[in-house]
Amino acid sequence: MWYIHVAIMIWVGFGFLMTFLHRYSLGAVSLNFLASCVVTLEAVFLVGAFYYMDNHDPGSRFTVSLDIPLLIEGLFAAGAGMITFGAVLGKVSPSQLLLLMVLEVPFYAVNDYYLIGKAFTARDVGGSMAIHTFGAYFGLAATLFLSKKGTGSTHAQNKSNYTSDVTSMIGTIFLWIFWPSFNAAIALPPDGRFTAVINTVVSLTGACMVTFLMSAIVDGKFNMVHVQNATLAGGVAIGSSADLVGAGPGGALAIGIVAGILSVVGFKYVSPLLEKSIGLMDTCGVHNLHGMPGLLGGVAAAAILMVDDDMAGCGHQLLALLVTFGIAIGGGALSGFLVSLVDRLDTEAAVNYAFNDEGAFHVEV
Amino acid sequence: MWYIHVAIMIWVGFGFLMTFLHRYSLGAVSLNFLASCVVTLEAVFLVGAFYYMDNHDPGSRFTVSLDIPLLIEGLFAAGAGMITFGAVLGKVSPSQLLLLMVLEVPFYAVNDYYLIGKAFTARDVGGSMAIHTFGAYFGLAATLFLSKKGTGSTHAQNKSNYTSDVTSMIGTIFLWIFWPSFNAAIALPPDGRFTAVINTVVSLTGACMVTFLMSAIVDGKFNMVHVQNATLAGGVAIGSSADLVGAGPGGALAIGIVAGILSVVGFKYVSPLLEKSIGLMDTCGVHNLHGMPGLLGGVAAAAILMVDDDMAGCGHQLLALLVTFGIAIGGGALSGFLVSLVDRLDTEAAVNYAFNDEGAFHVEV
Amino acid sequence: MWYIHVAIMIWVGFGFLMTFLHRYSLGAVSLNFLASCVVTLEAVFLVGAFYYMDNHDPGSRFTVSLDIPLLIEGLFAAGAGMITFGAVLGKVSPSQLLLLMVLEVPFYAVNDYYLIGKAFTARDVGGSMAIHTFGAYFGLAATLFLSKKGTGSTHAQNKSNYTSDVTSMIGTIFLWIFWPSFNAAIALPPDGRFTAVINTVVSLTGACMVTFLMSAIVDGKFNMVHVQNATLAGGVAIGSSADLVGAGPGGALAIGIVAGILSVVGFKYVSPLLEKSIGLMDTCGVHNLHGMPGLLGGVAAAAILMVDDDMAGCGHQLLALLVTFGIAIGGGALSGFLVSLVDRLDTEAAVNYAFNDEGAFHVEV
Repeated sequence: MWYIHVAIMIWVGFGFLMTFLHRYSLGAVSLNFLASCVVTLEAVFLVGAFYYMDNHDPGSRFTVSLDIPLLIEGLFAAGAGMITFGAVLGKVSPSQLLLLMVLEVPFYAVNDYYLIGKAFTARDVGGSMAIHTFGAYFGLAATLFLSKKGTGSTHAQNKSNYTSDVTSMIGTIFLWIFWPSFNAAIALPPDGRFTAVINTVVSLTGACMVTFLMSAIVDGKFNMVHVQNATLAGGVAIGSSADLVGAGPGGALAIGIVAGILSVVGFKYVSPLLEKSIGLMDTCGVHNLHGMPGLLGGVAAAAILMVDDDMAGCGHQLLALLVTFGIAIGGGALSGFLVSLVDRLDTEAAVNYAFNDEGAFHVEV
Repeated sequence: MWYIHVAIMIWVGFGFLMTFLHRYSLGAVSLNFLASCVVTLEAVFLVGAFYYMDNHDPGSRFTVSLDIPLLIEGLFAAGAGMITFGAVLGKVSPSQLLLLMVLEVPFYAVNDYYLIGKAFTARDVGGSMAIHTFGAYFGLAATLFLSKKGTGSTHAQNKSNYTSDVTSMIGTIFLWIFWPSFNAAIALPPDGRFTAVINTVVSLTGACMVTFLMSAIVDGKFNMVHVQNATLAGGVAIGSSADLVGAGPGGALAIGIVAGILSVVGFKYVSPLLEKSIGLMDTCGVHNLHGMPGLLGGVAAAAILMVDDDMAGCGHQLLALLVTFGIAIGGGALSGFLVSLVDRLDTEAAVNYAFNDEGAFHVEV
Repeated sequence: MWYIHVAIMIWVGFGFLMTFLHRYSLGAVSLNFLASCVVTLEAVFLVGAFYYMDNHDPGSRFTVSLDIPLLIEGLFAAGAGMITFGAVLGKVSPSQLLLLMVLEVPFYAVNDYYLIGKAFTARDVGGSMAIHTFGAYFGLAATLFLSKKGTGSTHAQNKSNYTSDVTSMIGTIFLWIFWPSFNAAIALPPDGRFTAVINTVVSLTGACMVTFLMSAIVDGKFNMVHVQNATLAGGVAIGSSADLVGAGPGGALAIGIVAGILSVVGFKYVSPLLEKSIGLMDTCGVHNLHGMPGLLGGVAAAAILMVDDDMAGCGHQLLALLVTFGIAIGGGALSGFLVSLVDRLDTEAAVNYAFNDEGAFHVEV
């Protein structure tokens, strides 16, 4: 059951959420489909191999045992990958995308399995750090190397239309409904799971409500970009602490509300600033939905541990967050640079190709 | 699991079902999203408080314990709220909608918890009365106060287009599939749940088949309004008696078939009549999908109790239905009147604003 | 839970997958909805009656006991029916479709229950043979009798558009995610189920990846027809052997890859050839997604039994496959002929009516 719920988030959730681009809907849902398969398969082998190396009988034959928890680990890696995809959406060829994903998985797996899990034994049941922070900053660093001039927010095709705004909501709603299962999938049953489900529901509810409020405040009317994305920030930000009883419904609500505010503010002010100042072109705004709320999630877990007087845990948590951030930026930059050597286009061709399915698909009019 | 299934009905089911309006799809799915969060949260506090007051240790601190059954109670309230939303869809501002929902919850909770549940101990496992009858007549009474002249069925934008008819079917299909879980969510496991699932599946199957037949009979060809709505009337009408063994598959099939006929006849004949005679403008036709089939559901449960020779139960059931109907009409009229004092528009502005997302959303062309 | 998962495949999966026709989306999802209800109900009675006749106490009253496993059997029959629908999609009237479905169920039930299940005790947990091979060749034989000249691949309306390609992906993604549950629904818990889930996930992953590769090879760019369909061939082909431990992840991956290749090659080369040579007009290409991969599935199970040194089982498996193929062709031809006597149109009217919802629905522009 947990496997199916997480699979719905990856293929339905991320797949349809990214259909918002009016001429790149096919690429969004199709390449999300393909790339998630590739990442899951690679991650299953890699995480499985790590697990084997730590637990095998000396002298036994090398075997990875494929079971449901390992598949869920594979899907978590696909989650990080699809967040990265969001940053480069519409600006890379399918080959570049797959190469970027293949390069991302080892960084992801080492960070998740050895650093967060073993070195720091940090709290991260729903992956605020391992999945969201990592996936977002990896993608943001990569997109700096992969985005040509003219493929930013002012590109004529970098927009939604009425229908694509509706199909994108399929993704939003399914992500929002199944996020509690995502955060609870590897929590300890039954109590940890139950706590993770309740806290995530509450946090998402807070994020949804505050997003509409903030959207109306900053933009006069509701903005579908905010509705599609910032409503989910509560799921991201509660990820590290979802199974900590210390959070409680009140704390979870607060985390969700702060995450929603942060996310809307990010879309309205931070993204334009980053595009203008350092040329960061982040198609889906993953910095606002996954990056900043992911950091918030790591910090929130640290704060809860501090309140519980677990100062060592708090320190480990913050170190794990910092290391995740660093590996994501470094790995993303390196991978983005390597990928930029493949399928090179001049600027004019890149602009024509961007946000347009006709580059890679036979498109019916 | 039951929580997730009911959540799918609320956010995917109602949300996409209401996207049928070709220029109000964003408002339908987005405001359904927001308002369901608000109603769920309010209902959790209110029903939780009622439960606490009835079960607390004297002298203990006031605490509502948030668990999955209470969340499901909250979602049931959101179901009633979204039915009400259907009656006023496209004709109220977001502020008006939220205010209407906030006013509705106390009426809902008192009726459901104290009257149906405690005073009459009526059968209503799937909420034919508490959710469907209540939500529909509350909304119908409110819409009398909230609909300006010219915002009825002849309004130029009060229509679907080809794409919105398809996205609306996402809602229909998910509602239809998950309805058995809705009716079984609070039934007594394992037997009551099993009976409720089977009876609901059978009733829905009957309603689906008869809807197509009736639609072709009354309209010559199939009418998507019937396909989208009346196919679901079997789930509404079996709601009160889903867990009564006395119904049996034959009885459930009969209830579904009658509900489907009633619903198509309602769309074809009753709604135009009500609009012409008393100016009732019911955007989604909730009277046909929830109102009349809900009443049928209450009566059917009473009839089954009568056949089982439980005359007291039968009487209580009918009284509960009558009281629900009265509170819904009264509460809806009062709330509709109060809401009509907010965000007042003159008739011309109301007509321009109606069934059009541009009033509340930044809309991409 | 398994019931719900299979229901999602039937109504969401097949329903939306077939919305790809740009002017027959309403018919696809609506008639899939109706016809699946009719087939499920009929199959529940028929399979239930077979089961009763084999297991009743002599002298007892004739009763079919409706339970969840029997409902799942009914849905499996609906699966076969919807595959058949795919072959004739857009070319038959609703009455013809329902009649064809009603005629198909007895052939299906006798083949599945008595021949595959009892006479040959063949392996077919996910229905590669009973559902996919049967449904496809039944439909292909029927479509030979039901397709008028000019309603083939060159018909002006036999095409998708951008939006319908996106809504079709709703079907693909939900089918792909829930297919493991389909193949595991009647496997023996817990081990058989677990094996069936894992093998199906692996096979589908292989089919998805190879489909994109093959599509780019044969068509230069990705073709949405392949993405929507061939990615699922791995689920079809692993159907007979999903619960055989002998397959193992490696074998499952191989089956999925071969199925994906077979399916893309079928769409690109085999379908045009069959249309040209024998006038076979297969709207959805069910021969490529269900026919050939279904045959592959039966053969693969036989091969696995052979490797396991179960020569009798291998022979029975191949005989069951052959008999299924024969009954499907014979039953489909007979049924198609009978149905062609109803709602007869001349060629010109048939061409006008084809792939166009306006024949059977009130369509909003």
